[in-house]
Amino acid sequence: MADAAPKHKVVIVGGGFAGLLAARGLNKQPVEVTLIDRRNFHLFQPLLYQVATGALSPANIAAPLRSVLRKQRNTHVLLAEVMGFDLAAKTVSLKDGSTVPFDSLIVAAGSTHHYFGNDGWEQFAPGLKTIEDATEIRRRVLTAFEKAERSTDAAERARLLTFVIVGGGPTGVEMAGAIRELALHTMRYDFRVIDPAKCNVIIIEGQNRVLGAFHEKLSGKALDALRKLGIEVKLDCHVTDIQADHVVFKADGGKAEATRIDTATVVWAAGVKANPLGKLIAVALGVETDRAGRVPVNPDCTVGNRPDVYVVGDLASQKGADGKLLPGLAPVAMQQGDFVADAIVRRVKGTSPRGPFSYRDKGTMATIGRGQAVAESMGFRFSGFIAWLAWLFIHIMYVVRFENRALVMFQWFWNYMTRNRAARLITGERPPDGRTTV
Amino acid sequence: MADAAPKHKVVIVGGGFAGLLAARGLNKQPVEVTLIDRRNFHLFQPLLYQVATGALSPANIAAPLRSVLRKQRNTHVLLAEVMGFDLAAKTVSLKDGSTVPFDSLIVAAGSTHHYFGNDGWEQFAPGLKTIEDATEIRRRVLTAFEKAERSTDAAERARLLTFVIVGGGPTGVEMAGAIRELALHTMRYDFRVIDPAKCNVIIIEGQNRVLGAFHEKLSGKALDALRKLGIEVKLDCHVTDIQADHVVFKADGGKAEATRIDTATVVWAAGVKANPLGKLIAVALGVETDRAGRVPVNPDCTVGNRPDVYVVGDLASQKGADGKLLPGLAPVAMQQGDFVADAIVRRVKGTSPRGPFSYRDKGTMATIGRGQAVAESMGFRFSGFIAWLAWLFIHIMYVVRFENRALVMFQWFWNYMTRNRAARLITGERPPDGRTTV
Repeated sequence: MADAAPKHKVVIVGGGFAGLLAARGLNKQPVEVTLIDRRNFHLFQPLLYQVATGALSPANIAAPLRSVLRKQRNTHVLLAEVMGFDLAAKTVSLKDGSTVPFDSLIVAAGSTHHYFGNDGWEQFAPGLKTIEDATEIRRRVLTAFEKAERSTDAAERARLLTFVIVGGGPTGVEMAGAIRELALHTMRYDFRVIDPAKCNVIIIEGQNRVLGAFHEKLSGKALDALRKLGIEVKLDCHVTDIQADHVVFKADGGKAEATRIDTATVVWAAGVKANPLGKLIAVALGVETDRAGRVPVNPDCTVGNRPDVYVVGDLASQKGADGKLLPGLAPVAMQQGDFVADAIVRRVKGTSPRGPFSYRDKGTMATIGRGQAVAESMGFRFSGFIAWLAWLFIHIMYVVRFENRALVMFQWFWNYMTRNRAARLITGERPPDGRTTV
Repeated sequence: MADAAPKHKVVIVGGGFAGLLAARGLNKQPVEVTLIDRRNFHLFQPLLYQVATGALSPANIAAPLRSVLRKQRNTHVLLAEVMGFDLAAKTVSLKDGSTVPFDSLIVAAGSTHHYFGNDGWEQFAPGLKTIEDATEIRRRVLTAFEKAERSTDAAERARLLTFVIVGGGPTGVEMAGAIRELALHTMRYDFRVIDPAKCNVIIIEGQNRVLGAFHEKLSGKALDALRKLGIEVKLDCHVTDIQADHVVFKADGGKAEATRIDTATVVWAAGVKANPLGKLIAVALGVETDRAGRVPVNPDCTVGNRPDVYVVGDLASQKGADGKLLPGLAPVAMQQGDFVADAIVRRVKGTSPRGPFSYRDKGTMATIGRGQAVAESMGFRFSGFIAWLAWLFIHIMYVVRFENRALVMFQWFWNYMTRNRAARLITGERPPDGRTTV
């Protein structure tokens, strides 16, 4: 049966969890897929903190998109930057001035850090969204220990050994735990002047508990585990200023006097906002983005009255069965990506349309440190070693799914056995005069 | 027996092969060692080309110096930049203005690229000495394929798929082979428009053979292997200009007409010069550096009439038993480092001084591609698969020696079996507007 009709063109913007799953779902279907991303790899963001603390190399958690999709013959990967959309002409505009036509459009452009109007803080408190963010934070953390080793001033040394994490969600908790373990175990014998174990890791959280998305009981377990690791957790505290050498916060939900913490290293784990492309879609289709810039979508992940335009992942604002907004988590993005791929296939094939998207919550988890995690799944709550094993297993399974990632498993296992973090390299700043070996 | 006398202070400048071996040789000896490097890791430079072509991650070939030396209690690692020496006061001056006193000084500051007076070429033709060099070359090589896939102009596409390596020594040969294999095997199914196998890899070599330091017969074998891989080798050709979009060279040893090659990616593998610190030592001690800036050393690796100042590794100019200069190779540096550590111990302990340094040449080798190498050792010459196995074994043994580097072995084995290069990430340039996911 010869089919000479032009294939239905699907353009996917973004190769994150949602975009990649959408592309995967269109494999071997009678459509032509173009996946556009400005990076050449899919990034497993939940493990970025392991790169930021030297446990994993960037390549361990990033898979080249072309490689992941190389056998999917109906899919073309385009390394390009999307500047906008012409929804009337049904094209996507790229930065180089060219356009890509679509019959169906999936926008999965994700999110970035949100400094709540204080963009000046970014240089002093990088977030953790890209490979470059992670290696920059790694550079800052390791350099702080190095400078402390050389400092002869006690106050300066204390400042250098103080690490502040803004935000007590999963990223903040994981980051704090990892820095503390790096100091306590990995670098235990590395220095001659300082004792890395004396470093001060402080989490500043605006709510009255860490891991606010979890059950209160698990927040309590996590708090205990953090304190046991020697991490100071300041709850109900609002950050009011971040500078190169200090952070200012107010306790009691912002009502107390301002307190200053001298520190050389601040990590931002407090908030995200949607990619600006969301705004463009929303304006074009007459809907309004929410405060975080996300696009409200219909139950079937389409936007406005366009059956051919889908927004998924962190960029979408969608309510779950309980009437609450779905969280910006990888599983939501993955299920949405899968869902819209199926919806497009049904539309192209003319079979019965699929019902509304419904999120199957298989559970959420966060790890605090080696052998310590909290997890909740289908009404059950776990913590401690069992939760950590579950966390490890699920993350490895995901990473393995897209690439030959036995390496990650091997490296994790190795680190676990040896408490080693082989990737603790200070890179990225070229030595000032170009000399290289010293 | 209490020993309250201050310990003999050894300062080592540089944590490369020579410096690290010197430090290792002073383990458990009655000396106090300070190893100064401005990077926090020892780098296994011979494998940098594997990072530049996405086969290994930077952390696979770099070991944190503190980690390598953590159990060596008499050794202090200092992350600092050396600016000069006061040989009369016996101190090393650091960039922050502080000084470090020494009783014995070992300068092992290594070498950097040498553009023979054409420093303007560096931006268009980076060399391969640092982690940042390697990830920058990786970015350029991978980006060239990406741009070619998007280009609609045949000439532009041909330019993007042309890779020029200046220099046919081990680095040039290895780099050319690795790019060709990346294109032929790893990325074989990755693109939809271009055929990566049609890429043009060209080596431009000034001498009339590649691998000039090897026996002529092996140069011939290497040339055959390179051509079989589809690499164009231009011998007896001198590069006269390098710009962003082309290279100009003259054949017949520079006597022919100028020929232009349109290319977007040039790698410099043609020459090295000594670290400028060599000049400072030479001037202070009244000796003259050679053309490459190396310091002529006495048979015992000391300089001038100073029994307490040693120069080793790429920075030293020393003749071997055959009257020829010792080559700038890792084994020479390692043996010299080992030698001076022993010499210092003998001096401190007052035992009989050691005779002159003599280089035990266990052999040299270069790899051309998967399963292809040339090696010569003690009069024997090998090529092909056996030589490659020997190369693999020796390199892995070295890397394993300093760290828990089972990982490298595992990754190599994995890549060999799957022809995969998981680390082919384009990183380092922050997306222009700070958006991160697309």
